[in-house]
Amino acid sequence: MRPSNRANDQLRPVTLERGFARHAEGSCLVSFGNTKVLCAASVEDRVPGWMRGKGSGWVTAEYAMLPRSTHERMRREVTQGKQSGRTLEIQRLIARSLRAVVDLKAIGEVMITVDCDVIQADGGTRTASITGAWVALYDALKWMEGRSMLKGPALKDKVAAVSCGIYKGKPVLDLDYLEDSAAETDANFVLTGSGGMVEIQGTAEGAPFSEDELASMMGLAKKGIGELLDLQNQAVGA
Amino acid sequence: MRPSNRANDQLRPVTLERGFARHAEGSCLVSFGNTKVLCAASVEDRVPGWMRGKGSGWVTAEYAMLPRSTHERMRREVTQGKQSGRTLEIQRLIARSLRAVVDLKAIGEVMITVDCDVIQADGGTRTASITGAWVALYDALKWMEGRSMLKGPALKDKVAAVSCGIYKGKPVLDLDYLEDSAAETDANFVLTGSGGMVEIQGTAEGAPFSEDELASMMGLAKKGIGELLDLQNQAVGA
Amino acid sequence: MRPSNRANDQLRPVTLERGFARHAEGSCLVSFGNTKVLCAASVEDRVPGWMRGKGSGWVTAEYAMLPRSTHERMRREVTQGKQSGRTLEIQRLIARSLRAVVDLKAIGEVMITVDCDVIQADGGTRTASITGAWVALYDALKWMEGRSMLKGPALKDKVAAVSCGIYKGKPVLDLDYLEDSAAETDANFVLTGSGGMVEIQGTAEGAPFSEDELASMMGLAKKGIGELLDLQNQAVGA
Amino acid sequence: MRPSNRANDQLRPVTLERGFARHAEGSCLVSFGNTKVLCAASVEDRVPGWMRGKGSGWVTAEYAMLPRSTHERMRREVTQGKQSGRTLEIQRLIARSLRAVVDLKAIGEVMITVDCDVIQADGGTRTASITGAWVALYDALKWMEGRSMLKGPALKDKVAAVSCGIYKGKPVLDLDYLEDSAAETDANFVLTGSGGMVEIQGTAEGAPFSEDELASMMGLAKKGIGELLDLQNQAVGA
Amino acid sequence: MRPSNRANDQLRPVTLERGFARHAEGSCLVSFGNTKVLCAASVEDRVPGWMRGKGSGWVTAEYAMLPRSTHERMRREVTQGKQSGRTLEIQRLIARSLRAVVDLKAIGEVMITVDCDVIQADGGTRTASITGAWVALYDALKWMEGRSMLKGPALKDKVAAVSCGIYKGKPVLDLDYLEDSAAETDANFVLTGSGGMVEIQGTAEGAPFSEDELASMMGLAKKGIGELLDLQNQAVGA
Amino acid sequence: MRPSNRANDQLRPVTLERGFARHAEGSCLVSFGNTKVLCAASVEDRVPGWMRGKGSGWVTAEYAMLPRSTHERMRREVTQGKQSGRTLEIQRLIARSLRAVVDLKAIGEVMITVDCDVIQADGGTRTASITGAWVALYDALKWMEGRSMLKGPALKDKVAAVSCGIYKGKPVLDLDYLEDSAAETDANFVLTGSGGMVEIQGTAEGAPFSEDELASMMGLAKKGIGELLDLQNQAVGA
Repeated sequence: MRPSNRANDQLRPVTLERGFARHAEGSCLVSFGNTKVLCAASVEDRVPGWMRGKGSGWVTAEYAMLPRSTHERMRREVTQGKQSGRTLEIQRLIARSLRAVVDLKAIGEVMITVDCDVIQADGGTRTASITGAWVALYDALKWMEGRSMLKGPALKDKVAAVSCGIYKGKPVLDLDYLEDSAAETDANFVLTGSGGMVEIQGTAEGAPFSEDELASMMGLAKKGIGELLDLQNQAVGA
Repeated sequence: MRPSNRANDQLRPVTLERGFARHAEGSCLVSFGNTKVLCAASVEDRVPGWMRGKGSGWVTAEYAMLPRSTHERMRREVTQGKQSGRTLEIQRLIARSLRAVVDLKAIGEVMITVDCDVIQADGGTRTASITGAWVALYDALKWMEGRSMLKGPALKDKVAAVSCGIYKGKPVLDLDYLEDSAAETDANFVLTGSGGMVEIQGTAEGAPFSEDELASMMGLAKKGIGELLDLQNQAVGA
Repeated sequence: MRPSNRANDQLRPVTLERGFARHAEGSCLVSFGNTKVLCAASVEDRVPGWMRGKGSGWVTAEYAMLPRSTHERMRREVTQGKQSGRTLEIQRLIARSLRAVVDLKAIGEVMITVDCDVIQADGGTRTASITGAWVALYDALKWMEGRSMLKGPALKDKVAAVSCGIYKGKPVLDLDYLEDSAAETDANFVLTGSGGMVEIQGTAEGAPFSEDELASMMGLAKKGIGELLDLQNQAVGA
Repeated sequence: MRPSNRANDQLRPVTLERGFARHAEGSCLVSFGNTKVLCAASVEDRVPGWMRGKGSGWVTAEYAMLPRSTHERMRREVTQGKQSGRTLEIQRLIARSLRAVVDLKAIGEVMITVDCDVIQADGGTRTASITGAWVALYDALKWMEGRSMLKGPALKDKVAAVSCGIYKGKPVLDLDYLEDSAAETDANFVLTGSGGMVEIQGTAEGAPFSEDELASMMGLAKKGIGELLDLQNQAVGA
Repeated sequence: MRPSNRANDQLRPVTLERGFARHAEGSCLVSFGNTKVLCAASVEDRVPGWMRGKGSGWVTAEYAMLPRSTHERMRREVTQGKQSGRTLEIQRLIARSLRAVVDLKAIGEVMITVDCDVIQADGGTRTASITGAWVALYDALKWMEGRSMLKGPALKDKVAAVSCGIYKGKPVLDLDYLEDSAAETDANFVLTGSGGMVEIQGTAEGAPFSEDELASMMGLAKKGIGELLDLQNQAVGA
Repeated sequence: MRPSNRANDQLRPVTLERGFARHAEGSCLVSFGNTKVLCAASVEDRVPGWMRGKGSGWVTAEYAMLPRSTHERMRREVTQGKQSGRTLEIQRLIARSLRAVVDLKAIGEVMITVDCDVIQADGGTRTASITGAWVALYDALKWMEGRSMLKGPALKDKVAAVSCGIYKGKPVLDLDYLEDSAAETDANFVLTGSGGMVEIQGTAEGAPFSEDELASMMGLAKKGIGELLDLQNQAVGA
């Protein structure tokens, strides 16, 4: 039995609140149960130095947790002078996932940064971030389209993500914090709207996992991501 | 005429949403119009090194803005390796304001940190932070009381803050971003429930200001803070 | 009775030793009693990135204390990798105070930095810094004038500063270290030659302060700053 | 055809030169073709602060590339003040992989750090690091055993790693730099001696990948890691 | 002919103003011509972690230049987050020089830090620092003696330093800035009162130098340091 | 008797393995006994900002030790955010030594960086680095010559270095770690092929040293460096 009484293949209640951040070109407050992440997309008229003059744009992401988004207060990263390895790893994952569905040529020499700030954490913050960031990105691209800033269709597909794990010996979908802390294996899946895999990351926290377990988790992930893609559709009215 | 059509002595709509952050010992989402700050108070069983063994606690504050709380995206401070002078100045002000109403002996060797994270900015983030932080602090002290952690009455008074300015030659209350950018003078007032002054900071942005102008701004501040104190009372049900 | 036996409205002996730093375009060693600050103004042919091409200059300030300017040795800030909040706050205050009396258009695309290095500290280092920095700035602008670098009258007024406090229940002028450590309230005033207020910063260290107390401190500040302005006049031979 | 003329399921020549670093408790210079990594295990009589007093040890890893291990010189990370996200990600991966096969209780309150310094890079530095680090770790544990520092069998299994990718539409084993730069998909597999999975990380660099492609890569990985485990056996004479 | 019209074996006018820094346990404002360094010795009741419990003390030094001690303003090191290689090199040299004449056992578990802050620079700041620091150290040890903090005679000897160079083909003593910038070779000598060498550092800035040139410079150094030692004697009244 | 049984004027076995680093324009693995340093020269088509447009190039060096090159593991400098004073001092010494034998005009606006990474340390890492770096530099200049990048003869001479010390009262050549830790005096000599001195650095670790001792060490250094220059000749086939 899962601590939340969910079925093994059941997502937590997911909401995508579009347009939450008044100033951003696109934004979304995403909730996976008690995990809440504010995703805000900013369009800036510049690209990193190494991309200048190539006629192509860039999509990147930054990730952070508010100090008291967690059960115990975490030290604010700026007071330690740098981002942790975990933070860097997550924001690199979010950015790669988004770039997988954007035609960087079509956006011109523009930089889109999606800030994913965790307001409250209860497991799955990176997968919630990716899922919500896509909505923010969608709106930022709409905003660019409205200003004739696009050189062609820029958004190639949807992208969403979910975690799975082996919890008490069983594969389960969308781990919350209690499950995540106790899972033997934790895996994150990032899939596109057309079902292609963008990222897969599996880690044995305790005993190694088998190919069968990986296959079971992948099955759950496909089901869960299917539901997330539907919610994204509803959110953007597509 | 003010950009928001408010009377010169009129606050923006103010809300204090208590208990917004699930994990914190006390929290409040404060809004002064479009300015929204999440204040979360954390109680930790430790004090800074220089206070150890003195039988007394400490109250501190941290302040940050989400990168896209502002009209243009701001760089995340952690990527620059340190907090800006403005950030440090504001969090020192919030902390001093809170300590002015807490009996540090009564809380024992405990550290209370109030994190003020600006979700959306439209002027007055530091005064909104102080006003909301008091509510978060109130609840954190109640939480301690419920666990018999207090050695006596810890909260000596309420404290709230508001900005005033000389805008187009007239003293006005509670500047929003448009006013703040154009004001000749900007002043922040921090007052206690019993009307004492904890902090006053006035700065001429353009021409120097006169004693009369300072007196007018102080009059507005007392009116505005009176209203904020009432809202705090309602929020905590006192 | 004040520890120094001064009357409540009496400044410490103040000296302004012009031209102390051989290499600087303008400099002044200022003493407020045992507080000694070396102020050195540097004229550089560049402006910060965000000001380039606007035909306007910039005046800024930096502040630091020698490690053994204080009673106990303080750690050198560079060994901690960054400036403290207090340092940043003070140098921002000095810079704003100086900019209040300079016409930035008149100096052209030039940056003037006034370094205020505390050689010995006995309270009031920030107010001594502002008072001495004005003399250094005056000479730097003279130096520019001598090289026909000014596009018009650049110095609009004098500016000086003093601290006041409530010490043992009485308002007193120009606190030294002993008074500063024990004062209930501490306030800094920055006034121009024509009597306008540029900055006012009052902080209750213990109990909150009243409007009457603020008015008394302001009265003392006006008297003290009047005397400082006279000494600046004598120093620059105006 | 692969640039190196290897068959799709063929490893590069792999060597494991045990005991390369004279001072370390265990060490191995591992080569996967032109990729050379020096792995050195250090046993230190301390644990991180958060582990003290728990009777258990810790295994960690650090990773770095010599500035001219690469085709173009890379800036030394220390001159930028911090490790890159890529570096942190890799060293976290190496450390998790090693901890998966060590009984931390059995080593007592001891910290084993395996430094993986890339002497020459030609793709696959992280998988070579894991494979070589295991040999260094093996010898460090032998060293501890020789000093009766172990409280029981500490090494639970072998662990080795290899990369696979989709290169010009075909799944291939053990990518070198030329392949890695051009691959559509890149995946790293970390497996134990008993065939369990410790980590799997797959990333679409271009188009998303399918479940079939993932399965093919996994098949290659199992073959390649089988050969690496044999080489580890030979190296340690087991 | 030297720019200052000095004879080749002539020091600049040297002054040692003892007790310049009111708060320090020992201090000296040293001038070598226009080079002025404030040396302040602080006695603190602690030692670095690695020395604790050994019954022995430590003597160290820190060195910095005021931003406008130089012809052109230098950036303050703290704003770059760290000390330059040159700064670190100089303060390590000063500290080694001082430790060469102190019996660290005799001072007990105490740390003496001599801060050498360059107020004005005109060449030879490191040699002036060493010469002045000895006077500050002398007084700090006297201060300790007066409080019965010494376990025996702590000061074993005097120490002083001077630079020499090959300037326009001739060996000269005590280079000023103009000479230093143009010298083919620059060498610093640190000698004790009894004539032993503590440090010698010679660098060819242009063409390599010969043994004869080194011998000539050493001869000049011995003459110059002899005079400096006399001045130290006078300064401390010994 | 020396711990290694060497005669007092005897070098350790020295090897210079040219071309060790496959990607670098020039490289050399140098061994002085158990001290091993990998020197890799990189030619980059840029110069530091302050040199741009002057038609001249720059030669610089960086130095680091692998964490377990030493007897006890050393913390990796990047994890402390900056290079130590010792590291900066050494890399500045290597760079000055190399620049002494290069005609910077002849290499054009090109930067040559020689990375000296200590693989294993047993005393004398800085002198081994200089000796090996010259070989790497030689090959990098050959590489430039082969591409017609030189504007004239760029390499003016050879340069090599060795340490000497007073060990148990006797002058000895080429100290290893055991001797270095116990030596009363330690001196490094850098000489050119034509016998000129580029750098001399002598430090009394215990008692001051005399002119006679310095002369004895210089005699040993000249003998040792003569042998090193021969080995360099053989290495480059000149």
